[in-house]
Amino acid sequence: MSSLAEPLSVNHLAQPLLQRLLDEEAALRIRVQRDEFGVQIIDAGLEAPGSVEAGLAVARICMGGLGEVSLRSAPEEGWPTWVQVHSAQPVLACLGSQYAGWSLSATKEETGGKKFFALGSGPARALAGREDLFQELGYRDRADAGCLVLEVDRLPPNVVVEKVLRDCALPPQGLTLIVTPTASLAGTTQVVARVLEVAMHKAHELGFHLDDIVGGSATAPLPSPGADGLEAMGRTNDAILYGGRVHLQVRGDEAAAQRLAQQLPARNAKEYGRSFAEIFKAAEYDFYKIDGALFAPAEVWVSHLGSGRTWRAGGCDMALLRKLWLEEA
Amino acid sequence: MSSLAEPLSVNHLAQPLLQRLLDEEAALRIRVQRDEFGVQIIDAGLEAPGSVEAGLAVARICMGGLGEVSLRSAPEEGWPTWVQVHSAQPVLACLGSQYAGWSLSATKEETGGKKFFALGSGPARALAGREDLFQELGYRDRADAGCLVLEVDRLPPNVVVEKVLRDCALPPQGLTLIVTPTASLAGTTQVVARVLEVAMHKAHELGFHLDDIVGGSATAPLPSPGADGLEAMGRTNDAILYGGRVHLQVRGDEAAAQRLAQQLPARNAKEYGRSFAEIFKAAEYDFYKIDGALFAPAEVWVSHLGSGRTWRAGGCDMALLRKLWLEEA
Amino acid sequence: MSSLAEPLSVNHLAQPLLQRLLDEEAALRIRVQRDEFGVQIIDAGLEAPGSVEAGLAVARICMGGLGEVSLRSAPEEGWPTWVQVHSAQPVLACLGSQYAGWSLSATKEETGGKKFFALGSGPARALAGREDLFQELGYRDRADAGCLVLEVDRLPPNVVVEKVLRDCALPPQGLTLIVTPTASLAGTTQVVARVLEVAMHKAHELGFHLDDIVGGSATAPLPSPGADGLEAMGRTNDAILYGGRVHLQVRGDEAAAQRLAQQLPARNAKEYGRSFAEIFKAAEYDFYKIDGALFAPAEVWVSHLGSGRTWRAGGCDMALLRKLWLEEA
Repeated sequence: MSSLAEPLSVNHLAQPLLQRLLDEEAALRIRVQRDEFGVQIIDAGLEAPGSVEAGLAVARICMGGLGEVSLRSAPEEGWPTWVQVHSAQPVLACLGSQYAGWSLSATKEETGGKKFFALGSGPARALAGREDLFQELGYRDRADAGCLVLEVDRLPPNVVVEKVLRDCALPPQGLTLIVTPTASLAGTTQVVARVLEVAMHKAHELGFHLDDIVGGSATAPLPSPGADGLEAMGRTNDAILYGGRVHLQVRGDEAAAQRLAQQLPARNAKEYGRSFAEIFKAAEYDFYKIDGALFAPAEVWVSHLGSGRTWRAGGCDMALLRKLWLEEA
Repeated sequence: MSSLAEPLSVNHLAQPLLQRLLDEEAALRIRVQRDEFGVQIIDAGLEAPGSVEAGLAVARICMGGLGEVSLRSAPEEGWPTWVQVHSAQPVLACLGSQYAGWSLSATKEETGGKKFFALGSGPARALAGREDLFQELGYRDRADAGCLVLEVDRLPPNVVVEKVLRDCALPPQGLTLIVTPTASLAGTTQVVARVLEVAMHKAHELGFHLDDIVGGSATAPLPSPGADGLEAMGRTNDAILYGGRVHLQVRGDEAAAQRLAQQLPARNAKEYGRSFAEIFKAAEYDFYKIDGALFAPAEVWVSHLGSGRTWRAGGCDMALLRKLWLEEA
Repeated sequence: MSSLAEPLSVNHLAQPLLQRLLDEEAALRIRVQRDEFGVQIIDAGLEAPGSVEAGLAVARICMGGLGEVSLRSAPEEGWPTWVQVHSAQPVLACLGSQYAGWSLSATKEETGGKKFFALGSGPARALAGREDLFQELGYRDRADAGCLVLEVDRLPPNVVVEKVLRDCALPPQGLTLIVTPTASLAGTTQVVARVLEVAMHKAHELGFHLDDIVGGSATAPLPSPGADGLEAMGRTNDAILYGGRVHLQVRGDEAAAQRLAQQLPARNAKEYGRSFAEIFKAAEYDFYKIDGALFAPAEVWVSHLGSGRTWRAGGCDMALLRKLWLEEA
């Protein structure tokens, strides 16, 4: 993939954004510390309260410095606060960096306590390259500092931190771990900011030629974090499934572009129409029983560069989101 | 208040924003000079014309570097230009810095001419700490430079400048005064950018526990400045009372959060529904005859972190604003 | 014109923006090289694919650092992606810099191949000052580096580059040429970002006193580039004629301000209502047969500072744009 063969280092590009996050520690209500090995740990919602703004900063880092992420306070369709994202490198930013694809687990024996599981996201994934996806992308990063985002409710055990260091070939001082529980302001925000990534991931699942995706922008409504991790996960999913809009620029085969528009929206899943919490419960809390087609934005616009054509498919269901998220006072 | 006990200096955080304003003097149509004592005076609408963009910059400084302020050109609800604001530190940014709460006056005798009155706003308030509010916030700033915003039609007399220097314990070279008449582009803009602050102030009046407000975003339509100070003041108030929308993130007591949503909107005031100019006239131009409940945004969304609930109350009346502000050509 | 007599150098102000563009070469999918003389050539859509984000950066440079340009992903009126622009110096930013007014041509004999024609835009125009417009503006820039934008499908021939160097009095190392074909992502984006400039140009044509325009903001929907240069040009024109909204702040004569609002919208042209492609074809591809009144935004808001009045005229036709640009998948 020529566009990914360019000398873009997602970890290097994320460094100034990480530095800015560190500089704004107090303002963003996060907490920065070094663990016993010297790894830098950013608590963005665990003990520290964090903030929506911390979530936006984490999202920018998570996209390896290749995405713009901002908040829009607009009364669109009956919801006041929206996240918007755009990138000239959506495949590299979203799949090469932002996607939560690095499975990190530890047994009870290894932790000496509770077992641990997390899906690592962010630029350090591209240093480790432990996922098959990196072969498909033909991308691997080299940098002397890396950053990984963990959407978990507690600090990772030493055994996991050691694995990350080893796989990334980083000294402890070169690694930053950002911890954001889904049920926190920063956590919810950085997950909703994955609205473009969700489209990239499904495009990949659909077999669309990723090198043909040359640009993308997206927006989704930002809910209040749920009362617990399960509700929070439901809401961030619903924000994208029922409120996410994505506009992609693609090149290459014209029919493939039109097919992408048709197949991409969440509406193609058989479960579509109910809240994610309800779907997840009906699936007995087993992700693998849910139609993979559901993990997608609500509305999709695909613009094809060769022909100049734009197709739209799917659509938002803001009434459902308002019913799920909102009460009249 | 733990969140305010953090080492955040609103004057220190405002310094780079102030420097940027100085660097853009000509582009933003402002004028920068030093008075006879060495105090830096920024004319943003007095002799110099100023601009909307200068107003946005003044608003960022006024929030002590703890707020993002931007312009949105969106055809929402029949008005073309909107200001939007958000902050991870709304209490400190808005009440600790932006609120126009420092009463600065001088008699005829003191000025040797006309008497002077202004409500100082911006970060230097937190150096002086002359308002009871700072005791309640438990916040006081220390910095070797400070910035105060005065929404007046003429330069402050020496006696007022001297008082500010004394109360802030600043040398003349350390003080910057920004002067923006309400009936100027910058003045109108920086007042409308107080839409979040107005909500913070009323939350305080309602007795809501301020430390429980952990984030906020807001938007309001930006009117053209009125023909004179009185009309300009009416319009900026109307922009917030009838067009302002605020979304707060709060923690703590759930019932208190719901009550905040119910009580916050301007609709709760008995005068609601008429233009501020009309209300003010009916009150014989005496602010204290107006129901304090009126000084509030039109529409309020309160998200409660513990429960995950969001309440909405109030609503905008853009038809009234269009009637007040707009003619078909 | 006093506001233009200020020491603002559009070429100097554009330099940091140009540097940022160079730093982001790979991320923005552009290509930077030096020609045989040492002139810096930025390919933003010729051989290099370019991107929407490159187009936004080119637009900021083209406005001489005096305009803010951003992307908005909002589902407004049935189109997902919008460009927005604002400036405290719309006359200088748009007419003194951004306007594509410098006619650069070369005969077959001069090129040794095909004849060449381009309308140069951007800050270097103000170094050359070859257009009568600069006399009217009373503006001329002096800087040791300059940047010119060429909306063409091939690199300019040497004879044209030499003319630019001579007229700008720049050494080759001081000149940057940015090449963006209309039918590219960056090209389409930077043309749509001219929505405010189009209003400035027509205000000038209408004889409005330019020094009285003290601020402006605008937005327009961003189409996918057309399949070829002709279709792309049609779409960028349609984006402004049928989807562009402009809000101007003016001072001076009140009746002149109201007249400006009435006369500015594209609706005043007799051809209004059909796509630009259709109009252009009917005019036998001769710009001079088209009513000049057509080159204007769809909807205009003029706010008059002295009186506080705002007039609106014209209106958008998003239904036409959706019909022209969009298909259901």
